Amino acid sequence: MTRTTAIVDLNADMGEGYGPWSMGDDIALLDVVTSANVACGFHAGDPSTMAATFAAARVRGVAIGAHPGFDDKPGFGRRPIPHTTAEVERLVAYQIGAAQAVAALAGHRISYVKAHGALNNIAQTDTGIARAIAAATRAVDRDLMLLVMPETAAERTARDAGLVIALEVFADRAYLDDLTLAPRSIPGAVLHDAEAIAARVTRMVTTGRVETVSGATRAVGIDSICLHGDTPGAVASARAVRAALAAAGVRLAPFAGIPA
Amino acid sequence: MTRTTAIVDLNADMGEGYGPWSMGDDIALLDVVTSANVACGFHAGDPSTMAATFAAARVRGVAIGAHPGFDDKPGFGRRPIPHTTAEVERLVAYQIGAAQAVAALAGHRISYVKAHGALNNIAQTDTGIARAIAAATRAVDRDLMLLVMPETAAERTARDAGLVIALEVFADRAYLDDLTLAPRSIPGAVLHDAEAIAARVTRMVTTGRVETVSGATRAVGIDSICLHGDTPGAVASARAVRAALAAAGVRLAPFAGIPA
Amino acid sequence: MTRTTAIVDLNADMGEGYGPWSMGDDIALLDVVTSANVACGFHAGDPSTMAATFAAARVRGVAIGAHPGFDDKPGFGRRPIPHTTAEVERLVAYQIGAAQAVAALAGHRISYVKAHGALNNIAQTDTGIARAIAAATRAVDRDLMLLVMPETAAERTARDAGLVIALEVFADRAYLDDLTLAPRSIPGAVLHDAEAIAARVTRMVTTGRVETVSGATRAVGIDSICLHGDTPGAVASARAVRAALAAAGVRLAPFAGIPA
Amino acid sequence: MTRTTAIVDLNADMGEGYGPWSMGDDIALLDVVTSANVACGFHAGDPSTMAATFAAARVRGVAIGAHPGFDDKPGFGRRPIPHTTAEVERLVAYQIGAAQAVAALAGHRISYVKAHGALNNIAQTDTGIARAIAAATRAVDRDLMLLVMPETAAERTARDAGLVIALEVFADRAYLDDLTLAPRSIPGAVLHDAEAIAARVTRMVTTGRVETVSGATRAVGIDSICLHGDTPGAVASARAVRAALAAAGVRLAPFAGIPA
Repeated sequence: MTRTTAIVDLNADMGEGYGPWSMGDDIALLDVVTSANVACGFHAGDPSTMAATFAAARVRGVAIGAHPGFDDKPGFGRRPIPHTTAEVERLVAYQIGAAQAVAALAGHRISYVKAHGALNNIAQTDTGIARAIAAATRAVDRDLMLLVMPETAAERTARDAGLVIALEVFADRAYLDDLTLAPRSIPGAVLHDAEAIAARVTRMVTTGRVETVSGATRAVGIDSICLHGDTPGAVASARAVRAALAAAGVRLAPFAGIPA
Repeated sequence: MTRTTAIVDLNADMGEGYGPWSMGDDIALLDVVTSANVACGFHAGDPSTMAATFAAARVRGVAIGAHPGFDDKPGFGRRPIPHTTAEVERLVAYQIGAAQAVAALAGHRISYVKAHGALNNIAQTDTGIARAIAAATRAVDRDLMLLVMPETAAERTARDAGLVIALEVFADRAYLDDLTLAPRSIPGAVLHDAEAIAARVTRMVTTGRVETVSGATRAVGIDSICLHGDTPGAVASARAVRAALAAAGVRLAPFAGIPA
Repeated sequence: MTRTTAIVDLNADMGEGYGPWSMGDDIALLDVVTSANVACGFHAGDPSTMAATFAAARVRGVAIGAHPGFDDKPGFGRRPIPHTTAEVERLVAYQIGAAQAVAALAGHRISYVKAHGALNNIAQTDTGIARAIAAATRAVDRDLMLLVMPETAAERTARDAGLVIALEVFADRAYLDDLTLAPRSIPGAVLHDAEAIAARVTRMVTTGRVETVSGATRAVGIDSICLHGDTPGAVASARAVRAALAAAGVRLAPFAGIPA
Repeated sequence: MTRTTAIVDLNADMGEGYGPWSMGDDIALLDVVTSANVACGFHAGDPSTMAATFAAARVRGVAIGAHPGFDDKPGFGRRPIPHTTAEVERLVAYQIGAAQAVAALAGHRISYVKAHGALNNIAQTDTGIARAIAAATRAVDRDLMLLVMPETAAERTARDAGLVIALEVFADRAYLDDLTLAPRSIPGAVLHDAEAIAARVTRMVTTGRVETVSGATRAVGIDSICLHGDTPGAVASARAVRAALAAAGVRLAPFAGIPA
């Protein structure tokens, strides 16, 4: 059953170049998404790349989020490097503040935070690390929203910190019944067919239920769909999702709104 | 002639460690200065070092400034690496924002900006670069003060940008008649004797005149004295300056005030 | 007049990725060139990228050279960062040794050295820096060849150091009468048309004379042609050069030979 | 019972500065040790620091070893960052080669390899990683010795690779009966008293037996004693060990000899 008032956000990682290197086709993706998670210089990105990404998002009415990660360019922030909670608080705060300032320079404004890579993965289950991310966000600016996966330590600690949250579902990842991501070792854990991805996303958004590998569905408030930007076919898949949602009458808009 | 109402600030560079490495005796210096220029992670510093420095400054009532430099740890930000003005705007904004956020986490507030090393040197004479520093500061927070050398492009462009400025004089460097620093190749360009430094600083502050190598003096509004923190004898010299000023009845206070 | 025995090498920069980032189409280029200048981890490259590049060169019979540059990933080694001659000696030696070791692991062998970017540019005219590059190369392994531009400080100092040199000419850059590169500000300084580039290279190789912007030619021993790998159309242009040389009966082979 | 022919090596980590930062008192330590494990630019060190350390070791007759670690300056190579065995092979080879080349420039020669920090810890028990270290060492130069802890995966895989090994015992760490280090959480795991350390080392070297926390002893061929260089009192403790060994008639010499 389609909810006639359905509205959802599409988010993707961006600004993941570094110095002379680029990654993904940000300009093409910015015409598809409504929110851009922008790397802040630790796992990827640098001040000039950030400024260019923010400016390109601004002219397209795309909301921007700080996307802090571990200080690990060789590993692209995907390696679980041990950190204390105090270290996480500081590196998250640092990156949010840097992003806010560069956004101000580019005439845009950071409206949310989403943790990147291994930091984000750890925050699904590690309450201490999740709490550090929320605390850093709140200390910097309590009006920032946190974009998190539903039913995770990240969601719970963000709520506890009094932050406004947005819930995201992955377009191309299968879910277990407890709403954790199916491990990549399981067949079908990652969806590759653009049309199948688009159809599943549309069903989930219009029904408000996440489909799991067992065939069950779970009611979830879906604020945003996470698309991937740096894989082959990423832009085509993202466009298919957007088209399918539009065809189903779903309205696309940034969950965080757009700064005036 | 001593001005009975003389008041001045003492500033020094701090937080210049990186990861496992430390530099200088910040804790000892924080008991001497009234303003700390804190490295922001590009030429030195990292989120944890910044947080620790901000917290230590807060409990001592020391004001904190963002001290952005070139992204050059091997050269400590002292090498004149070519940058466009747009690049300078972005790296300065990035570092100010990062410092503001980590300061918020540490319960303190950035009240001013001072460019570091080669970036600062270039801004003495390069109007484009100086303007980029002022523009970045203003874009991030127009209430931030800029700490600059008098009669430089940095001072002029900061005034043009509508920023409140503070003027600093170096405790241990000789001045030419145009108020530029005497080149290090000239004998006497760098003062080493703590008592001589202290006496000269006290004369300059109480008379409001900078002494030059020709024996002349120039009237300058001196808001702050720049001490050095990473040389042998730095702390002893800083203490001698503070003691001499106090003995002359000069009051020491942060030029930017202290956040409530 | 075509020399019937003409033989020449084609070189290009490779292995210029870093961590998750790639640059250029190395595999396609490796099917065109006979020598690969491989980044050594300072301006670009990392141990895994180097190993993969060396292995791919080995199976294609492509000779490999160490391509040391300044420690400047954000600037890709293209910014003239001030260095002492002692610093240059050490960073060049470091990178050569690293490349030799990773090549050994990959079953290949470094046969020459070519300085990268700003380091290479400086070595055209700065005798001290050029001498440092030659001295470092000689200290590490006196059997390594140096690939240099003709009639430069780099060539002279390499000869003085007793190193075997190879002379390269740029495929797509115009020359002044003194064999320096025409500044990019001059119209025609950079050639873009693949067929024109290929024809000019073939004339220069078969006649043994470099063509200059004045219309003159200068006799030069041309051991190698430098192709560019990271510009749009790079691979197509490289293939055109190779095809034109082959059509003119020029034999293509690594100037340094291939390790047994 | 004292062996009249006892001879042992003293090793410590050195060259652990980076750019403007220094760590430990290398010069003082170089007058105590007979072998220096020199950081290779990944967890610490840079070409100039390496060259200076090698030169200082050379004039004192101290042998030098490459001390490769993870590419992790913020964590000083002490964080267990996930790596594949292929990645470890490449980063170890890279660092050994770099050290060999800089040593050649400094007139010295690398005679052994010792893994640093987390990489070394992992190699105590992880056969795949240990094998990668041995394979990289062998590929670069099969005459290099590997300095390892006895009865570890590192020792076994080095022997399997046909490398000559040297066995080290820690001066200030307690051992369990299986010759693994007592966890730091156990009281007495780290020894602090210089005289007690010196006496224990002397007993272990002269008897050829390692003392464990249970009061037992285990016969081990002790080729080298690992001293620590970057803790307070490190130099004093190192001197006490050296003096006690000398007083007991033990001869001190590099296990790897000194290059002619």
